[in-house]
Amino acid sequence: MLLPPASLLAIAPLLEISPHQLEVAETLIQVGRFVVIFLVARAIAELLVRLQLPTILGELVAGVLIGVSGLHLIVPPDTQAQLAAGVTSLVGSLAGIAPEAVSEVYNETFPSLQAVSQLGLFALLFLTGLESELDELVAVGLQASTVAVAGVVLPFAMGTAGLYFLFHVPLIPAVFAGAAMTATSIGITASVFGELKWLKRKEGQIVIGAAVLDDIIGIVILAVVVAIVGGGAFSLGPVLKLCLAAVAFVAVALVLSRTAAPSFDWVVDRLKAPGDVAVASFLVLTVCCFAAQAIGLEAALGAFAAGLILSASKHTHDIDAAVKPLVALFATVFFVLIGTGLDLSVLNPLDPANREGLVVAAFLLAVSIAGKVAAGWSYLSKEPTNRLVVGLGMMPRGEVGLIFLGLGSQAGILTPALEAAILLMVIGTTFLAPILLRLVIPREPGETTTVVADQPA
Amino acid sequence: MLLPPASLLAIAPLLEISPHQLEVAETLIQVGRFVVIFLVARAIAELLVRLQLPTILGELVAGVLIGVSGLHLIVPPDTQAQLAAGVTSLVGSLAGIAPEAVSEVYNETFPSLQAVSQLGLFALLFLTGLESELDELVAVGLQASTVAVAGVVLPFAMGTAGLYFLFHVPLIPAVFAGAAMTATSIGITASVFGELKWLKRKEGQIVIGAAVLDDIIGIVILAVVVAIVGGGAFSLGPVLKLCLAAVAFVAVALVLSRTAAPSFDWVVDRLKAPGDVAVASFLVLTVCCFAAQAIGLEAALGAFAAGLILSASKHTHDIDAAVKPLVALFATVFFVLIGTGLDLSVLNPLDPANREGLVVAAFLLAVSIAGKVAAGWSYLSKEPTNRLVVGLGMMPRGEVGLIFLGLGSQAGILTPALEAAILLMVIGTTFLAPILLRLVIPREPGETTTVVADQPA
Repeated sequence: MLLPPASLLAIAPLLEISPHQLEVAETLIQVGRFVVIFLVARAIAELLVRLQLPTILGELVAGVLIGVSGLHLIVPPDTQAQLAAGVTSLVGSLAGIAPEAVSEVYNETFPSLQAVSQLGLFALLFLTGLESELDELVAVGLQASTVAVAGVVLPFAMGTAGLYFLFHVPLIPAVFAGAAMTATSIGITASVFGELKWLKRKEGQIVIGAAVLDDIIGIVILAVVVAIVGGGAFSLGPVLKLCLAAVAFVAVALVLSRTAAPSFDWVVDRLKAPGDVAVASFLVLTVCCFAAQAIGLEAALGAFAAGLILSASKHTHDIDAAVKPLVALFATVFFVLIGTGLDLSVLNPLDPANREGLVVAAFLLAVSIAGKVAAGWSYLSKEPTNRLVVGLGMMPRGEVGLIFLGLGSQAGILTPALEAAILLMVIGTTFLAPILLRLVIPREPGETTTVVADQPA
Repeated sequence: MLLPPASLLAIAPLLEISPHQLEVAETLIQVGRFVVIFLVARAIAELLVRLQLPTILGELVAGVLIGVSGLHLIVPPDTQAQLAAGVTSLVGSLAGIAPEAVSEVYNETFPSLQAVSQLGLFALLFLTGLESELDELVAVGLQASTVAVAGVVLPFAMGTAGLYFLFHVPLIPAVFAGAAMTATSIGITASVFGELKWLKRKEGQIVIGAAVLDDIIGIVILAVVVAIVGGGAFSLGPVLKLCLAAVAFVAVALVLSRTAAPSFDWVVDRLKAPGDVAVASFLVLTVCCFAAQAIGLEAALGAFAAGLILSASKHTHDIDAAVKPLVALFATVFFVLIGTGLDLSVLNPLDPANREGLVVAAFLLAVSIAGKVAAGWSYLSKEPTNRLVVGLGMMPRGEVGLIFLGLGSQAGILTPALEAAILLMVIGTTFLAPILLRLVIPREPGETTTVVADQPA
């Protein structure tokens, strides 16, 4: 449709094709990538829902299936993998150009798919902030805080120290892998607790409160770690400065959520042009991202902070409705892209060269489970609570773990073996948590089916 | 956040900056552009709503204000214009790089803003198709068809012939400018008729029916004209083939809207993963875009056809809710970008070199008004109807005219003078139509204020 950008047009003469052929090939590739991503991701998600497993894993599995470990339909250029021959010859014959030229156009246009995936990540973090129920956190304040802090410190310390001292992984990737184990995925736990009717019990309250705080701590760690990686060095002064800046940034956002949200509502109430809530929220989002990046933090932290600020707005419901389709579409692209870049051949146990990688993966999984379960014994309570349920509830890593994996992988600081180990850790904890919780929590008699299966078809 | 794409990383050494500085500069620029676009577009849209003028014009005016004819905050690289010094020095000092490097990063990252604007265009055309009330068209079938066809043929023929014979514009730009005058913007007319309570009268029915058909004809013309421009030549055989393909494509979409929509509903009803309707519609959208491009038509026609197909779904309301935020966000980027690229200095009447351009602009505006008003006298009716109201109702060009302008401008086939003339034609017809209609339609006694002003503040 639009003429391809100048940087792409510049390669047309080199490939000996006309601008029109280039445009046709570009559109077919750009649109075709979306078709493949959504078709496969959706099919697997539907399967997982029916197995009562978290759909986020479906997007990852879809990525692995169509990526460099699978069908080679979506191949990030930095993996140096070849696009499937079927794709190059189909697009080549439709656009009337040579298959080699198709690969070239494919690689040149990949950044715009990454731009869409980044929009999805920002939308997802914004939504996470928006749906943070800060009041729930306050209600179980002290106990949830203890669980959250213990659940962050234990896996991070054990993971980083183990990788650095036992497996001699360099410090920066070790810190990164350790950090990837910190944040609990609130969505998966909440849905299992809801399904088993334990959400309103003391254990459910503590877990949800801790997971909210955990998200905040995890994203602060992410902002700091990625900034450290960007700087390349690991000296104490700048790291402390970054930590302080990140904590201050989130603290300001929390204060603003109590003070600025009414002003936001005041402005939105006075807007009359159509689409006002969506655009006004997007403006808050972009301004926060700009502010975060301007003071040396990650723009992603800004997206989360924007969500926190608006979580106290009375228009939360409308904002939510506007953001959810964006997340459904574009965050899917983000998670699928993570899967496409993963080289799972490093996990093949038959190859002796992979033994160490498999041991690292097993170690990370063990630490990530032990660290969170142990956090269940970290709080004081007068009434008896099921500490194992709390610990298991904190276990699934899901989205935030995957965000670490995606960013670390794209920044090129993780070896393929470490990437695969983090992937196994995320998948393992996220798959195991609902299964173990269902075993540990006794189902009440009289209940026949689960919430998901109860939904009208 | 994400490491910049390889094509961008390649320029880092040339600019003597580190990958981290590049990443910071990239994020600041990408996010900052959104802040500027939405802040200005929204402010002007709010102003126009209060003046009871169409907000679409606000996005255009915002683009002109911040673009190459204004503050130079958003400058498309192909215009060769310089970015405002304030921007380069602000971003340069925040990222710690030289102002020249900022301009370089700005230009290299512009394609991802264009990718977002293209998503917006597709979402807008999809929504246009989705909201097409085909039943209304059938109700006033013959009369609406006559008005639609006359309203397409008259401005197209007069405009193209006038430009070619009177002003010696080459054939392809003349055809393009003529085509830009064909499609009525349904939204603006519908809101004025609704406001004046004439929507359910015979005149309103004819105009809405004709505008629906008009949209279809206009987008078919767009698909054909852009394909011709892409091919570079203008020979009868391929043009006829393209016309046939486009008409067949829309015909198939219309048939599918009656037959395939129930199957779509059947599938959606069986989906259980979250975000199902949004993702399922997006899949239909991308598949249609791919199909259109694969048979040599524009992907945009596919987006519109996808909307037509789903317009008969029982989930239209949910799809609508999912697409509207996308349109509010990304179509705004599309329209603002059109404005940013326009060089309005060619309209300065004090410069004698501009005289001819101004005459062309006046000619296009006159023909575009006369052609549509004349269409009001083209239908047969037993009962007396106000033909002037029908003609004026068909006048506003709005979105579709701007889409022509945006595509023609990006394809580089329009001279600055012709671009400005099309812009004036779109703005003129869209501003004048509601004003003239209010003068011609007698306001019923007892009504005090308009619909817009009646909305709660």
